[in-house]
Amino acid sequence: MKSFTKDTKILIIGLGVMGGSYARALSGRGYRVRCITKEQKDIDYAKNLGIIEEGSTCVTEETVAWADLVVFALYPHVFIEWIQEHQSLFRPNTLITDVTGVKSQIVDRVQALLRQDVEFIAAHPMAGRESSGVEYSDDSVFEGANFIVTPTPKNTPDAIEAAKELGRVLGFARISQLTPEEHDEMIAFLSQLTHCIAVTLMTCNETPMMENYTGDSFRDLTRIAKINDVMWAELFLLNREALLAQMDAFSAEFDRFRRLLEEGDGEGMRQVMRKATARRTLFDKQKKKK
Amino acid sequence: MKSFTKDTKILIIGLGVMGGSYARALSGRGYRVRCITKEQKDIDYAKNLGIIEEGSTCVTEETVAWADLVVFALYPHVFIEWIQEHQSLFRPNTLITDVTGVKSQIVDRVQALLRQDVEFIAAHPMAGRESSGVEYSDDSVFEGANFIVTPTPKNTPDAIEAAKELGRVLGFARISQLTPEEHDEMIAFLSQLTHCIAVTLMTCNETPMMENYTGDSFRDLTRIAKINDVMWAELFLLNREALLAQMDAFSAEFDRFRRLLEEGDGEGMRQVMRKATARRTLFDKQKKKK
Repeated sequence: MKSFTKDTKILIIGLGVMGGSYARALSGRGYRVRCITKEQKDIDYAKNLGIIEEGSTCVTEETVAWADLVVFALYPHVFIEWIQEHQSLFRPNTLITDVTGVKSQIVDRVQALLRQDVEFIAAHPMAGRESSGVEYSDDSVFEGANFIVTPTPKNTPDAIEAAKELGRVLGFARISQLTPEEHDEMIAFLSQLTHCIAVTLMTCNETPMMENYTGDSFRDLTRIAKINDVMWAELFLLNREALLAQMDAFSAEFDRFRRLLEEGDGEGMRQVMRKATARRTLFDKQKKKK
Repeated sequence: MKSFTKDTKILIIGLGVMGGSYARALSGRGYRVRCITKEQKDIDYAKNLGIIEEGSTCVTEETVAWADLVVFALYPHVFIEWIQEHQSLFRPNTLITDVTGVKSQIVDRVQALLRQDVEFIAAHPMAGRESSGVEYSDDSVFEGANFIVTPTPKNTPDAIEAAKELGRVLGFARISQLTPEEHDEMIAFLSQLTHCIAVTLMTCNETPMMENYTGDSFRDLTRIAKINDVMWAELFLLNREALLAQMDAFSAEFDRFRRLLEEGDGEGMRQVMRKATARRTLFDKQKKKK
């Protein structure tokens, strides 16, 4: 396909929480959406809701070759295995994209594996839910959120533009473009580090009955500690060096704050807090421009 | 006063975000509420809303002796200074309480300073807003939240029960009782540590334009990094030993997770994440029992 239009037929591979949210957004805006996914019950659920027109638990040429645009919403290693096994089924000039949370280790491998007449343009929808499964899918999480396209020199301008248009159609507030390496450094800080912190907060103090005394701040910092352990362990390992660097930067700054406290340096602590307050204002959620 | 009843007249000292939220909740339930606060504009604002019947910027015997119950919603050192300067104005048998976020260093000092015919029963409403000022007050934050009473052996059963009844009237979902020391250890973990983490997240990486790529998880973990630096530096210093211990426990666990990542131990990481997921479920917000 050359561009993303009203007639683009979309196949979603993997109807979990993210694939389901794509299906909701796209079918809700009048696009034709089909899916391939493991469980028949998820297909039945989505067909009942009217968010897909057809679905299959088998990878067949009929389904794969139907699509102009294929969205992979799978665990990273499953995505790569799928390409290795089934890429012969794509129609020539199919465009494929993904939702994978790390890029450097995925994009180059998929592009190297892929047939020359099929193009892979990577994207990361930065919105999610802490629960897994199509029944938790919800495209309202895309409102006000960021959609990042991560092309390589192998990508065509048409494919890059099609991926950005997909982000706009899904309802994202801001569409950006980064290299896979820039993306992974950024995601190590903004997403992976925060998940490591949330998990650590839940495991560093096992005092019983603590939950009886909690306030909203602790709940906010640990919401994402309910975590899909299989997916996140894979994402962390695929971005190990960048994440280790961000963990070390965090620890060094945390130790500096600890020393200010230990030394009774109130003014030093207040300075850091004023800097944090000013910088945090930049991160308030943007309203979508109409 | 012996007990907290419909006729209890309540004086709030310090009409900021927490004092204002008390005024909203109590006046909304038909209680008579007055205040003493620094700024006339805050009194005008609250009178216009009908959440106080009178207010004064001066500490006068007329206002102080009117009250059956006095709620101090001041910075800790200002609270102690106020008691030193003005306690002669209380009517005998006045009950006083507070909203201070640390207890060990406050409760003993105030009880030691205080006249024998006035009783101080400490309490901590575990709900708040990240913005300061009466215009941000909002008693809906009490719904589903925890209210902790921290008596000492000097307190009477009547005063403890009156403080608990205050928490119930304010709309808190769960009323608990802890010693000041238990409270401070718990708060070091559940509240102070989380604020240190949020502040550190905002200051450990100064890459520009990061805000263009952020997702909800980073926003959640740093919401409380917009922080009242004067108040929190004071609270941290008043609870220094307990907070340092919690920071050290967090750092040790964070380092353990970092080592699992560095060693490529996916199963080790997944185990920690499964433990975090299970434990986090305990901390979901309770619905208030009707």
